[in-house]
Amino acid sequence: MSGAIQSLSRAAAILRLLAGGERRLGLSEVATGLGLAKGTAHGILRTLQQEGFVEQDPDSGKYQLGAELLRLGQSYLDVHELRARALVWADDLARAAGETVYLGVLHQRGVLVVHHVFRPDDSRQVLEVGSMQPLHATALGKVLLAYDPVARGELGDGPWEAFTPRTVTEPAALDAQCALVRERGWADAVEETWEGVASVAALIQDRRRNPVGAVCVSGPVETVCEGGAVRPSLVASVRTAARAISRDLGAHRF
Amino acid sequence: MSGAIQSLSRAAAILRLLAGGERRLGLSEVATGLGLAKGTAHGILRTLQQEGFVEQDPDSGKYQLGAELLRLGQSYLDVHELRARALVWADDLARAAGETVYLGVLHQRGVLVVHHVFRPDDSRQVLEVGSMQPLHATALGKVLLAYDPVARGELGDGPWEAFTPRTVTEPAALDAQCALVRERGWADAVEETWEGVASVAALIQDRRRNPVGAVCVSGPVETVCEGGAVRPSLVASVRTAARAISRDLGAHRF
Repeated sequence: MSGAIQSLSRAAAILRLLAGGERRLGLSEVATGLGLAKGTAHGILRTLQQEGFVEQDPDSGKYQLGAELLRLGQSYLDVHELRARALVWADDLARAAGETVYLGVLHQRGVLVVHHVFRPDDSRQVLEVGSMQPLHATALGKVLLAYDPVARGELGDGPWEAFTPRTVTEPAALDAQCALVRERGWADAVEETWEGVASVAALIQDRRRNPVGAVCVSGPVETVCEGGAVRPSLVASVRTAARAISRDLGAHRF
Repeated sequence: MSGAIQSLSRAAAILRLLAGGERRLGLSEVATGLGLAKGTAHGILRTLQQEGFVEQDPDSGKYQLGAELLRLGQSYLDVHELRARALVWADDLARAAGETVYLGVLHQRGVLVVHHVFRPDDSRQVLEVGSMQPLHATALGKVLLAYDPVARGELGDGPWEAFTPRTVTEPAALDAQCALVRERGWADAVEETWEGVASVAALIQDRRRNPVGAVCVSGPVETVCEGGAVRPSLVASVRTAARAISRDLGAHRF
């Protein structure tokens, strides 16, 4: 990339490497993985360690991501205007729907979950904030693909990975679905990401009517769907919540 | 710091600056805040932006933290062995105590919350994962101070900030409390961080019996305390959970 500071780009590449796959890597593995000389990789790792971005296991000497990233990630959330405005609406939506609610934004080639309201029951659930969902196989992703040209550009030409037999993997089929999303104003994904899970999502816009994210309800097909399609009452709830959040962000004001 | 790569240390300083205080800063504010030339600050910011660590508001031109930090922070949690081993125990502890549970580790000069189980009722609660708590004014912090010389070193000489009239701000008083923590095997903080809130914490050790974190129960003084002191049944629950997590990490095996 033009004008990028090399040591900084390399440091970012090391962090991405440690965030994927094995996640605990020795110096040689880091150097080999990125095609760097061992001395170069060591200099960057040592600085990252001093700054708290990387930790080294005293037993194995292997590197892993550091606590400072968690602290900075929380600060990102604290300053996130969309998330702040959506908190109450997302809570209400989860309560009304009786299902899980996610709020997602486009990040790189996927959907980054910036807020997650647990399904309102007593079951054990894992918080998904900070995790990524695939653009082509989720309701959140299809909303972003339908309305945000950048998202469609990021996704490229396919074919994409099939997570279930129902995942849409071909560009023509996906683009047809996106046209339908724009026509109806909402997207669904019924067993396209995980077997047995269905979700429905709608677009959030900012004051300039730009697409800035999406909100979705997700749950077991047995409760989210009726006769193979998402229940109309859930569609209405999700669209109402998306409109309310957009309104809070300044959209639809005249 | 010796051998640190300057552009990397400066990039980390910019991220720290954006994580504190105002959180949305213009180029001049960043440059002035860190004593950098504008051109230098701009080069670093542009690279951080390309890597997703920083975002620029299109309207104001101001910089804020970027989404990649949230994704990396989540990856940090995913690989965090202490947190992974503690999840089930923390859930059980929250249910048994009927109160909030936090899991914390030493990070820089404070306690970083790496796991948070909501109080098991239907009230609206804000997730604290990734946030920092003060060492000298919380039960988690006092456990770390009592058992981890690094934590005590980080805290320095005081006097420290008083958050309530009950906060311990003087070194002699705090060191006496730490001695008591070591004698009893647990720490409390009754209205020392927030008025009306009391907490009790115990130490988590790894297989080499090193202090690696602490677990605490926190809630209203009215339910956590009895006659001004933490209820003995809560102390027992927290200590049992801390032992179980330590056991899971390999401590107390012969």
